[in-house]
Amino acid sequence: MADPIITLTTDFGEASPYVAAMKGVILGINPVARLVDLSHQIPPQNVRHAAHFLALAIPYFPLAAIHVVVVDPGVGSDRPILYVNTGGHQLLVPDNGCWTKLGAAFPDPPAVRRLEAAGFWRQPVSNTFHGRDIFAPVAAHLSLGIDPEKVGPLVTEWGRLPEPRLEEKDGALIGEVDFVDGFGNLITNIPASRCEGLGQPLVVTVGTEVILRRVRTYAEVEPGVLVSLTSSEGMLEIAVNQGNASKRLRAGVGTRVTVEARH
Amino acid sequence: MADPIITLTTDFGEASPYVAAMKGVILGINPVARLVDLSHQIPPQNVRHAAHFLALAIPYFPLAAIHVVVVDPGVGSDRPILYVNTGGHQLLVPDNGCWTKLGAAFPDPPAVRRLEAAGFWRQPVSNTFHGRDIFAPVAAHLSLGIDPEKVGPLVTEWGRLPEPRLEEKDGALIGEVDFVDGFGNLITNIPASRCEGLGQPLVVTVGTEVILRRVRTYAEVEPGVLVSLTSSEGMLEIAVNQGNASKRLRAGVGTRVTVEARH
Amino acid sequence: MADPIITLTTDFGEASPYVAAMKGVILGINPVARLVDLSHQIPPQNVRHAAHFLALAIPYFPLAAIHVVVVDPGVGSDRPILYVNTGGHQLLVPDNGCWTKLGAAFPDPPAVRRLEAAGFWRQPVSNTFHGRDIFAPVAAHLSLGIDPEKVGPLVTEWGRLPEPRLEEKDGALIGEVDFVDGFGNLITNIPASRCEGLGQPLVVTVGTEVILRRVRTYAEVEPGVLVSLTSSEGMLEIAVNQGNASKRLRAGVGTRVTVEARH
Repeated sequence: MADPIITLTTDFGEASPYVAAMKGVILGINPVARLVDLSHQIPPQNVRHAAHFLALAIPYFPLAAIHVVVVDPGVGSDRPILYVNTGGHQLLVPDNGCWTKLGAAFPDPPAVRRLEAAGFWRQPVSNTFHGRDIFAPVAAHLSLGIDPEKVGPLVTEWGRLPEPRLEEKDGALIGEVDFVDGFGNLITNIPASRCEGLGQPLVVTVGTEVILRRVRTYAEVEPGVLVSLTSSEGMLEIAVNQGNASKRLRAGVGTRVTVEARH
Repeated sequence: MADPIITLTTDFGEASPYVAAMKGVILGINPVARLVDLSHQIPPQNVRHAAHFLALAIPYFPLAAIHVVVVDPGVGSDRPILYVNTGGHQLLVPDNGCWTKLGAAFPDPPAVRRLEAAGFWRQPVSNTFHGRDIFAPVAAHLSLGIDPEKVGPLVTEWGRLPEPRLEEKDGALIGEVDFVDGFGNLITNIPASRCEGLGQPLVVTVGTEVILRRVRTYAEVEPGVLVSLTSSEGMLEIAVNQGNASKRLRAGVGTRVTVEARH
Repeated sequence: MADPIITLTTDFGEASPYVAAMKGVILGINPVARLVDLSHQIPPQNVRHAAHFLALAIPYFPLAAIHVVVVDPGVGSDRPILYVNTGGHQLLVPDNGCWTKLGAAFPDPPAVRRLEAAGFWRQPVSNTFHGRDIFAPVAAHLSLGIDPEKVGPLVTEWGRLPEPRLEEKDGALIGEVDFVDGFGNLITNIPASRCEGLGQPLVVTVGTEVILRRVRTYAEVEPGVLVSLTSSEGMLEIAVNQGNASKRLRAGVGTRVTVEARH
């Protein structure tokens, strides 16, 4: 049997010792745990970025993995820490809604527990670093095979992020940029399948910029050309071939995007 | 038994092939070594950052791990490379003091060896990349179980970093910023326990900025509020909830911090 | 026997979920694969940087590793994806020349296959994320031991990057900066061994700056001094001790460098 996998997603940044401390705690409890870094460059305290990140990454993992997510502006407050099982994927997350976009992808309701069994925690628990003192040791114990029931009781309420707006009005779809990837590509919350229902040809508007060129992939156009396409997850995406659409359009998460068919 | 763990801490940066070359060398000698990245974003040649990093990260690891640290402005000079066993933790470090802050945490004196047994090194040894040619192969051989005695003789002298200043004067504690984490939080060299002895309420001064708000954790205040608190390691910390104290106060490592009780 | 190693090199950046998705896909197919991050900070779409990176990193790995390289400005176009075996090292690469500098280091001709066996791919294959849909699953299947013959037919033509210019003229060698490392050191395409044939003392010119100081390693000079030396790979390198030569000389990849003996 494969040794257990624990993935780590944080906003700690690569220069900080906090990720390293968490890895040490995990390996101290379960020396055969296999650590997989997902990202430590989630923008600081950006729960929305984390939510998008998890929705795009976690579904591809085998169900045996345990995913630790520490993007936690509320650390040390009374916000709970949750054990979540959604679609069979197991996560430890602060209760700030970072996982509900992922959870929406699965038809079955999630099982959600509030971490309470302090016997699995490092003592004393600091006020500012629950990643090291709670998340890491609980993940390590789970990877050793303890029953998730033991980490705390089931709960039925949890935080959610506001849904990004998406409306249809006068035959146009009005949504927003939901994510900016490392290339500056703008991924919107507008399903490409809904764009197709509007008719042809499509006109995409971001601010004062009108994008008429619709492609299957970046390389269909010359470098520097602004296009819309379907993202690898099936959403409307705006990109510049070999360029940075976010910088070019001065657009970021939350920027309004409109799609309509040309009259 | 778990396969051996080798951790890597460097200032090489993520875009460089040097970390990758070291990983290749290690796996070429010990194919079952388990590589754990601690950080490759130590600020270039910043031995003080490395020292703080190691002190905050290494103690959490199981003793079986071997820690490779290549923050080495003196590469190729006659500065020794050391094998250090402190508190049972084993490190390979350049002799520039990067490990002595960590070592101060353990009561027993460290065992320190100067790497000399060139039979464990890649040949020829380059003048500019000892990470690949000495650190990596020696770590790999240690992970195969060779006796540390074989890597070189014991030494009794080694480099130390200057202690950051910390003085008490007229009832005030005067210290400095010792570390800036990825959120811009300022960790000082002033133990929180010593602040408590000054009386109440505490006044923290950084440059011309006076910080009166003392909290247990960031989330006790509104976003944007400047506070002092106790760091996860028990030191006086200055932070902005969901903001960046380093930028806000234009403060960095070495910036003077004063704490006193209000009269 | 050691569990199989799969290394990952991309230009996705650390904040993006794309690397994480690839890791999930690999572990979903081969749960015992050992993932080794080489870099995810290759500058976006910079195939030349990737080429240099691979040439400096891959030769140190044991031959059993499978190297996945996704620096792929042509994703979704009809550019092939290649399985390459060069010097016994196995890579999956877009056909954009990123591997030919590595390949030039080995005397035997490479075996190159064009990925065609879609049975090993995730379905449906997106137009914009072949890393997840083709590279990752094929790497995972190779790590399970399938015969490389099964991934697609041998080909005899592939893309190459233009050679950086290197000429000898009037007793001077004229080359260029081939790579800038994380410290800002400038690695040129001029073999140090050829410099030695020019005579003594050497004069290195970058733009209007003349560099007379030649050293074995950085630490031979005071911090801030500009020097030339031999890189860890045997090329002429230009550096500033504890500084950044790239910023100091405003030089980057492609900047002309001239070496001659002083008259």
